Amino acid sequence: MLQLSLDTASETALPLVDQIVGGIRARIDDRVLRPGVRLPPIRGFAAQHEISRFTVVEAYDRLVALGYLQSRRGSGFYVAPRHGAPAVEQRSGEIERAFDNAGVLHQSLEDTSGRLKVGVGWLPPDWLDEDGVRRNIRALARRSDTKVVSYGTPQGYRPLREQIELRLADLGIGARAGQVVLTHGATQALDIVARYLLKAGDSVFVDDPGYWNLFANLRLYGVNLIGVPRTADGPDPEALEKLLAEHRPKAFFTHSVLHNPTASSLSPATAFRVLQLAEKHDFLIVEDDTYADFHPGPATRLAQLDQLRRVIYVGSFSKTLSASLRVGFLACAPELAAALTDVKIVGCVSTSEFAERLVYLMLTEGHYRKLLDRLQRRLAQATEHSLRLLERVGLSVYAEPKGGMFVWAAAPGSSDSARLAGQASAAGIMLAPGHIFSPQMQASPWLRFNVAYALDPRLERFLGSTLGR
Amino acid sequence: MLQLSLDTASETALPLVDQIVGGIRARIDDRVLRPGVRLPPIRGFAAQHEISRFTVVEAYDRLVALGYLQSRRGSGFYVAPRHGAPAVEQRSGEIERAFDNAGVLHQSLEDTSGRLKVGVGWLPPDWLDEDGVRRNIRALARRSDTKVVSYGTPQGYRPLREQIELRLADLGIGARAGQVVLTHGATQALDIVARYLLKAGDSVFVDDPGYWNLFANLRLYGVNLIGVPRTADGPDPEALEKLLAEHRPKAFFTHSVLHNPTASSLSPATAFRVLQLAEKHDFLIVEDDTYADFHPGPATRLAQLDQLRRVIYVGSFSKTLSASLRVGFLACAPELAAALTDVKIVGCVSTSEFAERLVYLMLTEGHYRKLLDRLQRRLAQATEHSLRLLERVGLSVYAEPKGGMFVWAAAPGSSDSARLAGQASAAGIMLAPGHIFSPQMQASPWLRFNVAYALDPRLERFLGSTLGR
Repeated sequence: MLQLSLDTASETALPLVDQIVGGIRARIDDRVLRPGVRLPPIRGFAAQHEISRFTVVEAYDRLVALGYLQSRRGSGFYVAPRHGAPAVEQRSGEIERAFDNAGVLHQSLEDTSGRLKVGVGWLPPDWLDEDGVRRNIRALARRSDTKVVSYGTPQGYRPLREQIELRLADLGIGARAGQVVLTHGATQALDIVARYLLKAGDSVFVDDPGYWNLFANLRLYGVNLIGVPRTADGPDPEALEKLLAEHRPKAFFTHSVLHNPTASSLSPATAFRVLQLAEKHDFLIVEDDTYADFHPGPATRLAQLDQLRRVIYVGSFSKTLSASLRVGFLACAPELAAALTDVKIVGCVSTSEFAERLVYLMLTEGHYRKLLDRLQRRLAQATEHSLRLLERVGLSVYAEPKGGMFVWAAAPGSSDSARLAGQASAAGIMLAPGHIFSPQMQASPWLRFNVAYALDPRLERFLGSTLGR
Repeated sequence: MLQLSLDTASETALPLVDQIVGGIRARIDDRVLRPGVRLPPIRGFAAQHEISRFTVVEAYDRLVALGYLQSRRGSGFYVAPRHGAPAVEQRSGEIERAFDNAGVLHQSLEDTSGRLKVGVGWLPPDWLDEDGVRRNIRALARRSDTKVVSYGTPQGYRPLREQIELRLADLGIGARAGQVVLTHGATQALDIVARYLLKAGDSVFVDDPGYWNLFANLRLYGVNLIGVPRTADGPDPEALEKLLAEHRPKAFFTHSVLHNPTASSLSPATAFRVLQLAEKHDFLIVEDDTYADFHPGPATRLAQLDQLRRVIYVGSFSKTLSASLRVGFLACAPELAAALTDVKIVGCVSTSEFAERLVYLMLTEGHYRKLLDRLQRRLAQATEHSLRLLERVGLSVYAEPKGGMFVWAAAPGSSDSARLAGQASAAGIMLAPGHIFSPQMQASPWLRFNVAYALDPRLERFLGSTLGR
C-alpha cells in the first residue's frame, strides 16, 4: 500500500500535485517502488489520502510525462522500466548472498511508512536525550577551539579515548588511551578488524544466532562463516571444541553481554573455557559489547579475563547516546591498535572529531549516568510488559533478559517464524524472524522482539488474533 | 625535536609538570615517540620551553615511575619498551607494504608540532568558512526536525542527494538522486566501490602518479596495482593501450580534473580515447573528482561523456566545506547504486544524517558559490606565488595548474626527491616527495607543493639555502 504523508493544511505547503509527484518519484528513485509495480487505482489513492481524484489524475499524468510511470489502457499505472542499466559484471553469487541478512536492516532504515518496527535493534529516538544532544551540539559549535572543518587525528579525539580508558577500567579492562581507536560506529570497528585479520577462504567463527549485519560483512570478505551455537551462558564450549577439531578459525566474533538477539550474557565459567580454547587453538576473539551500557550491575567479559592480549574489544555509543553521531571504538593490544589505525586511515582517512567531541561532552557533563539509569528502568518495565504479553499470546521466551532491549521468543510447534513475520508485515508490523540471525539463514522458530516497540498495542492485537488466543 | 605547547600564563592551566607528563605520555601512547627513542636532555628541554630545569626533572621522574620512560645512567631518558604485545599473526608482508604510501598521511594527520605542512592535500582551516559551519551547526541543532540520535537512511539524506543531482547536471552529468549514494568522505566511496568490484588477485589500473591513500587501500584488497602513466592531458592513451595488451583490469581508478598530484586536467580527446579503450576491453572506470569545485570554469570529465554507464563518479565536500563532517558521495548506474548501498550498510550501517543536513544547508543557503569564488581567487594568487618561488630556487614545474592547491615540481638533475624531503623534515617542513605518489613507490624527482602552505617564508628560506640559490 502506497501511503504518502501529504500536507493539506499548512499555508506554506507545496501544491498537492507536486507533493504527490515528489513522493512517488522519491520512492521510485530509491527503489522502494520497483519497475513493473502497479500503482494504487486513482479512486483508491484519492480516498485513502482524502484528496480529490483530479489531483491524483494530474499527478499520475505528470509522472508519465516524466518517464516514471507507464499508463496501460484499462489496467492502470505502473512504474516504468529503467533504461541504461550498466553492464557491470558482478563479482559472484556470494555478493548476492552476502546481503540476504542485511536486507532486513536496509528495509528498516529505509522504511518511513509508519510501520511498527518491533524487529529493529535501536530505541525510539524519544527515549534518548535528544535535547541534551542538541544543547551540546550548540555549545560545541560556539567554542572557538572546536575543529569544524579539518580532519581529525588518526586514532580519534584523545580526550574521548581517555574517557574510554576510564570506562574500560570500570569494567575491569586495562587499556591505555593509546590502545583505543575511535571508529564510525561499532560496525566500522568490526569491519576494520575483519579487514586486517581475514582473507578470502579463511574460517571465521560467529555466534549462532548472532548479529546479521556482521555476517553479511564477513561474507563480503569471502570467508567461511561457521556458527557456534549459543547457550544462555554464552557460546557452547562443547560445541566450540567439536568445531575446533574440524576448523582452524582465524577469529571468533562473539557478543558477551546482553547478546543480540538472545539477550543472554556470558558466565565466568564459559568465558574461561572459551579463552582456554582460544589459547590452545590460537585464534583471536573479537568481543562486541555494543549493549554494555544497558546492563545493570557487573557482567563478565572475555576482555576482562584476557586483558586485551588475545581479545579485541568493540564498543559503541550508538544505542544510548546517538546513532546519528556514528561513534564507536575498538580497544586492543598496542601494536595491533597501531596497525588497525592504519587500516582505518586507508579506508576513510579519519572519523569526525566534531562527533567525538560531542560524545566526550555528553559523557563528561554528568548526565550520562542518569540517562542510563532512566533507560535501564524504562527498559526493565518494557521487558516486563513484553514478557507478560508474549505469555498471554502463547509464545515461549528463551531466557528472561537481565537488561537491554531484546526478548527472544518462539511460537511452540512452529519450526519457522518467517511466516508469522510475513503476516505481521502485511499488518504493518515489522518483526525480526530467527533465520536472519542464523549465519546460514536457516529456518528458526525464534523471533527477536524490541521491548520498546512492543509496548504498542498493535503488536498484541496482531499476535493475539494471528496466534488465535 | 620534542616541542610541547605549554600554558605558562593562564590561571586555570594545569601545573607545568602535569602538562609535560600529559604531553609526553600522549605522544608515547600515540606512537609519535616510539620505544627506544631518546628524550631531549633536561637542560635543552628546559631552555627550549623556557621553564625551570627542576620542572623537567620532576616530569621525567614521574614518567619513569609510570613506566613510560627509562633512565639510563649518564646517557639520559629513553621511551620504555612496551610489554604485552600480542601474538597476532599478521596477514602477510603485503599488509606492511600496503601502508607504505599511507604512512605520510598518518604522520601529517598526527603531527601537531607546528611543522610547516607543505605536503598535505588540504587547505589551512582558516581559508574555509569556519564561522558559516559553526552557524549552520547551531541552526541545525535548534530545528526540531533534525534527527540527532537516530540512524540515517541507507543511501543518505535525500535533499542533499537532490542537490548533488542538480550540481552534477551543471557538470553535464545526468544522475537522478536515486543514483547517488552519500558516503563518509570520498575515500569511503572509493573503498565501497573497490570492495564491491574487486577480489584478491584482480588487476586494477591506477594513475601513476596518483592518490597514495587509494593505493594503500587497494593493496589491502590484495589486488595487482598497475600504474598508467599520466600526461598533462590525462592518462597516456598509448601507454594504456599497451598495458591492456598484457592485463585485463577490472577497473581503472583515475582522477580527471586538477589531478592529484600533478594538477593537470583531462582533455576531451584523451577522455574519448580512454572510454573507447574501456569499452573495447570491458573495464569500469572510477572517476575521482574530489577537487572539482576548485576548477574555475568548465572541465572535461569521463562521466560527462559516458553518463554513468561505465563510469562511477566520486565527489567530496571535504576540501571546500569541511573535512571534519566526512561527507562525500558516489554516483553511478541505478542497479549499481543499490548494490553499493548494501555494501555501505554492511560496512558502517549508515552515514551521519546530521553532517549531511549540514552540508545541504551550506550548499543551499547561498554562500557556497561566493566561498568557491574566494577560494579560487586566493588559490590563484598562491599558485602564482609558488610558481615564482619555485622558479627562483631552480625547480621546474610539470605543468602550470589551472586551479586547485597543488604544484608538481622537480629539481633538475635529481632523480629522487626523498633526500630533499628528508632535509626539509629536519628543518621542520613537511614535503610530499614523488615516490609516495607512485603505485610501486618508485624513486621520483618530483614533489607536490600545496600552494596555500607554500606562502610561508620558511619554505623559500629552506629551498633557497638547500638548493644553493
